Amino acid sequence: MAITIAIDAMGGDTGLDVTVPASLDVASRVPGVELILVGPREQISARLESATGRDRVHVVNATQVVGMDEPAAQALRSKKDSSMRVAIDQVKSGHAQACVSAGNTGALMATARFVLKTLPGIDRPAIASALPRAKGHVHVLDLGANVDVPPEILYQFGIMGSTLVRCMENKPEPSVGLLNVGVEDIKGNETIRRASELFRSGRINYQGFVEGDDIFNGTVDVIVCDGFSGNVALKTGEGLAQMLSSIIREEFGRNLVTRFAALVSVPVLRSVKRRMDHRRYNGASLVRLTRTVVKSHGGADVTGFAHAIEVAIAEVRSDVIGHLETALAQAMDDGPQIGATA
Amino acid sequence: MAITIAIDAMGGDTGLDVTVPASLDVASRVPGVELILVGPREQISARLESATGRDRVHVVNATQVVGMDEPAAQALRSKKDSSMRVAIDQVKSGHAQACVSAGNTGALMATARFVLKTLPGIDRPAIASALPRAKGHVHVLDLGANVDVPPEILYQFGIMGSTLVRCMENKPEPSVGLLNVGVEDIKGNETIRRASELFRSGRINYQGFVEGDDIFNGTVDVIVCDGFSGNVALKTGEGLAQMLSSIIREEFGRNLVTRFAALVSVPVLRSVKRRMDHRRYNGASLVRLTRTVVKSHGGADVTGFAHAIEVAIAEVRSDVIGHLETALAQAMDDGPQIGATA
Repeated sequence: MAITIAIDAMGGDTGLDVTVPASLDVASRVPGVELILVGPREQISARLESATGRDRVHVVNATQVVGMDEPAAQALRSKKDSSMRVAIDQVKSGHAQACVSAGNTGALMATARFVLKTLPGIDRPAIASALPRAKGHVHVLDLGANVDVPPEILYQFGIMGSTLVRCMENKPEPSVGLLNVGVEDIKGNETIRRASELFRSGRINYQGFVEGDDIFNGTVDVIVCDGFSGNVALKTGEGLAQMLSSIIREEFGRNLVTRFAALVSVPVLRSVKRRMDHRRYNGASLVRLTRTVVKSHGGADVTGFAHAIEVAIAEVRSDVIGHLETALAQAMDDGPQIGATA
Repeated sequence: MAITIAIDAMGGDTGLDVTVPASLDVASRVPGVELILVGPREQISARLESATGRDRVHVVNATQVVGMDEPAAQALRSKKDSSMRVAIDQVKSGHAQACVSAGNTGALMATARFVLKTLPGIDRPAIASALPRAKGHVHVLDLGANVDVPPEILYQFGIMGSTLVRCMENKPEPSVGLLNVGVEDIKGNETIRRASELFRSGRINYQGFVEGDDIFNGTVDVIVCDGFSGNVALKTGEGLAQMLSSIIREEFGRNLVTRFAALVSVPVLRSVKRRMDHRRYNGASLVRLTRTVVKSHGGADVTGFAHAIEVAIAEVRSDVIGHLETALAQAMDDGPQIGATA
């Protein structure tokens, strides 16, 4: 059966300029996939004309757009015909199995929770994404949705991350670490230490505390943290990468000799850039919704947005939601027992 | 008057191999400075023999060493003749104005608090350090000493960071940002939002919330955060820098062509490395003690450790402690008034 993904065509900093070509790219490249572009019908149709892949790209009309800085509550209340809302509605109604948006994160989170609801437990999904390493990558959650997270919920994040990686990467027992300010048991605050006890007694391949440097330089498959430190870590990494790339550019541009070095080094620098390319990691999952919703970076280009669509396809293919449902139900059944151990 | 700095000669991963040459380097290079090396007298004296700069390096005997993984409480209780403790005692007794150690952070923090006490308010110093940017640098605190920090203490960190930069860099009104997961007023948790109100109504050049990417890529002079997110940010940055450097090494070493490119690029790569050199930023201040104590990275080499000694010298020269005392007293006088505004 074909997988159908609804696309918020107006989301992100550039809207149709990115979402339409990315959708056409995926439609013509990935077999067994149909895409529904949600947005102003005429504008989208004009762009689809005679394009390759367009027979598997459909259009659903939506007249409004959620602003990138619009408060979530306002978007939810007054933008019922926005491309974001209608795309999520497509999932709710069963016309699509998943939805992808590069729009306003807060509005996407609020609308998806309101329309699709969450799996039992808490009603706030976590944001999970893969991040690059020199070899392979790591999945980190939460990257910013939940700023204050009690130990029990951190444990559920562990279950969620572990399930995600198990499904998507066919790893039977992904290793999980809990982000802290040191690896010794006494480090951190009460919340993180209690969470660690839950992790130890739970159904998870728990490896103990990890530190910030383990994100990009460690070995565990999944790193669990609250949304505050996760977001700080993610953005610190972005800032450092930007700084380094501007320093490298500056030093290679310094004079004729360094410019020659740059010329000779083009293939090497290109490989380094490719390996660090955030577009290859674009597409964060809002984990715990009853359906798959993937958030693309607002500034993603065609390659990046296409990758986010492929993340959604992979989640649907491997039935992440079904597995999450089972795993979370089990974890919550274990609850009292785990509480007793802690 | 000469400035005297006490050095924990046995601290750090390499002890005397680093601390002795670094001390000799500073003594022979920086005028008006005397150094007291604290550790096993005979071993140290043997290394000082006929070295340049040795007339300004003195030795004070200490028979014990604090282990890098030793619990802080144990070190405090049972290592009263450790190089760390005796170095701090030298400051307490007035023989030195400041102390530098590359030893166990927890033990250094506990011992320094116990022996030297803190300026009024809370009894736990914050860890502050400069971090590199493409242009200039930023001072961040707390980098890991205080994991749970109420709004009032975050505000005091703001005063402390601002005072530190004002004294050390002659900036009359350093700009200060508060680390959060977004820049809008509604972002973050209750603690961070209340802290922001205090910052706004206080004696500080407050610029509002900043995000993780502003650490390495932003413009404020001082970034304030709790020790949990500060430590996560610092170590995430370290991990990413390590990953990037291993990727760059790998790509330049791939084949004969890339190795030629590496050869041609040596001066450029060296400049990049120099600008990112963590040794130039080594030396974190434990801010709020009644005296200056500087923590060096445990793995610092001679250059790095010498830099940490110079941080201590600069703090003493610019009377950071005196200015902190005044600024904190003022801030606490403002307390009720600020509370009323908040």
